Amino acid sequence: MASAELQGRPADPFTERTPRVVFASKLHRAAARRKAGRFLAEGPNQVEAAVSAGAALEVFVTAEALDRHASLLGGVSHAGIPLSVVTDRGMASLSATVTPPGLVALCRSVVRDGASSRDAADAPDGAGAESAAEPLRIVAIGQALAEPGNVGTLIRAADALGADEVWFTADSADPEGAKAVRASAGSLFHVPVVRGIPVDEVAERARSRGLALLVATGDGEVDITSADGAELLREPSAWVFGNEAHGVPAELRDAADARVRIPLRGRAESLNIATAAAICLHSSAAAHPAAG
Amino acid sequence: MASAELQGRPADPFTERTPRVVFASKLHRAAARRKAGRFLAEGPNQVEAAVSAGAALEVFVTAEALDRHASLLGGVSHAGIPLSVVTDRGMASLSATVTPPGLVALCRSVVRDGASSRDAADAPDGAGAESAAEPLRIVAIGQALAEPGNVGTLIRAADALGADEVWFTADSADPEGAKAVRASAGSLFHVPVVRGIPVDEVAERARSRGLALLVATGDGEVDITSADGAELLREPSAWVFGNEAHGVPAELRDAADARVRIPLRGRAESLNIATAAAICLHSSAAAHPAAG
Repeated sequence: MASAELQGRPADPFTERTPRVVFASKLHRAAARRKAGRFLAEGPNQVEAAVSAGAALEVFVTAEALDRHASLLGGVSHAGIPLSVVTDRGMASLSATVTPPGLVALCRSVVRDGASSRDAADAPDGAGAESAAEPLRIVAIGQALAEPGNVGTLIRAADALGADEVWFTADSADPEGAKAVRASAGSLFHVPVVRGIPVDEVAERARSRGLALLVATGDGEVDITSADGAELLREPSAWVFGNEAHGVPAELRDAADARVRIPLRGRAESLNIATAAAICLHSSAAAHPAAG
Repeated sequence: MASAELQGRPADPFTERTPRVVFASKLHRAAARRKAGRFLAEGPNQVEAAVSAGAALEVFVTAEALDRHASLLGGVSHAGIPLSVVTDRGMASLSATVTPPGLVALCRSVVRDGASSRDAADAPDGAGAESAAEPLRIVAIGQALAEPGNVGTLIRAADALGADEVWFTADSADPEGAKAVRASAGSLFHVPVVRGIPVDEVAERARSRGLALLVATGDGEVDITSADGAELLREPSAWVFGNEAHGVPAELRDAADARVRIPLRGRAESLNIATAAAICLHSSAAAHPAAG
C-alpha cells in the first residue's frame, strides 16, 4: 500500500487516499465546511447521533473499529448509509484526535445560517435559511466564543436544560468544527443551532421572536436568585454568554433588557462559560415548568 | 550557552539547567509533587494568585516575560520571593503549555492529604494532615474524576459558588497537576482542597463533619427543583460528582442520604461535570442565604 501511495496510483477501498477520503479530510477547515455544507462527526457516540438524526451521508471506519462497533455499524449499513473501510493512515487524515476512535461520519450541515437576509442567497444546500417557526421560550446565545469546547458545551447544556435554540454570533468558533462537535456530545444533532449572526443584529432578532434579551455578566444589576430575577425568568428570554476574555461588548449590554449576575460567594472573580450557562439556563428552565 | 549545555558545565543563572530548574521540572510528575510537597503554577494569573496566597516559594521567568509583567514581578520581588531568570529552553522544561507564558511559580503544596489516618505519617512537609475545623455547610466531592480540567473546573465553581471545601477521592486526577491548576483559575489557592480520600471512607467522613451526603446522578430519586429537593438543600451537605464515564459506584450511591437528579428536558442523555456541579452547588448556595 505504501508503494501504491508513493507512486500516486488510483486507490482501492483499503488505501488511504480515495477521492471521498480526500474530500472529507478537507472538512477540518471551516471554510471548506461552509462551502460544502458538510462536516465530520467522530467516534461511536457522535456517529450514532448523526445516524439517528438522519444527518450521516457516509461513514468511514477502520477494519479494527468495524469489528469493535459491529452492532452500531450494522445499523448504519441497514439504514442504507454507505460504509467505507479505510486504512489507519486514511483514518488519521479524517481524525481530529491523537488516538482516533476509528470511525467518522460525513454529515450534511445541521446548523442554520443566521447571516443577514442579503447574504442568505449564498447558503449552501443542506444549510437551510432560518425559518421563523413556533414561539420560543428559552434561547442560549454564544457571543464571540473563541473556544470550540465552550461552543459545544453550550449546545450540550442548552439541549439538556430545555432551551429551544442556540444562536452564535458571526465571530464565534464553528459549532461544526471537530472539538465543538465532540463537546456537544450529540446535542448538535438534537437542538436547533444557528451560526453567523451579526452581533449588531442580536437584540433585534431576539425581540422579533418575542424574547427578552438577558446578558449574563458578573456586574449585572439583577441578581438571578432575587425576586426581580425570578420575575424576569418567567418571560420568554434569550441569554447572552460573552467572549471568554472580553465579555459582552458595551453596545450589546446596553441593548439588552437586563444584565443579570450570579452571586459569587468565594474569592473567585468569575465563572467560566459552562458554569454560568448551566446556572442561567437551569434557572430559566425551572421558571418555565411547562417546558419540555 | 548552547555549548555550555553540550559540555555539561555548571550553569549560570541564564542557562537552562540550573539545579533549581532541574528540581522544578520534575514536578510535572504527580509522584514527584507528592514526595516534595511542591507544585508549579504557570502564567501571570496563577503566579499572582500563588503569591497573594503566600504559596509561592520561587518564581521562574524569561527575560521577555520579565519585561511584559514588570509590575507583577516587582511585587514578587518586593514580597521577598526569589525571582530567577531562565532561558526559553529552561522555561520550556518548566512549562506544561505549547506556547509558554514565560513565568512559573514553584509553590508549596496547598492541598491537604485525606488519606486514612494510618497513612498520615507519610505526609510530606507543607501538606499538613487534615484538621477537623469549623462546621461545614457545602462541600463538593470529585469521585474518580479522570480529567484534570474537570478537577480544576470543580474547584473554580466550588469557590465561586461558596462551597466551604472540595474533596477528591484517591483515584481522581491530582488538583496540583498543571491542567487542573490552570482550570481552577486561581481558586486552588482560595478554597480548602483535600485529595486522596479512600472512596470507601467518603460517606463516613461526610457524616463525621455533620454533612448529608448527596449523589448527583441522572437517575436520582429526588428532583433538585422539587419541594423535596429544596428541603434537602437546606441541610449542610456534601455533593458527590462521579467519574466522567462510569458515574458513582453502587456502594457510594447506596451509602448516600439521597441521590439527586437535575431534570433533563431535551434529548441530551446527561450533563457534563462542570454543568451538573454548577447547578447543584448554585442550588445549595441559594438555599443557604447566610453563606459567604
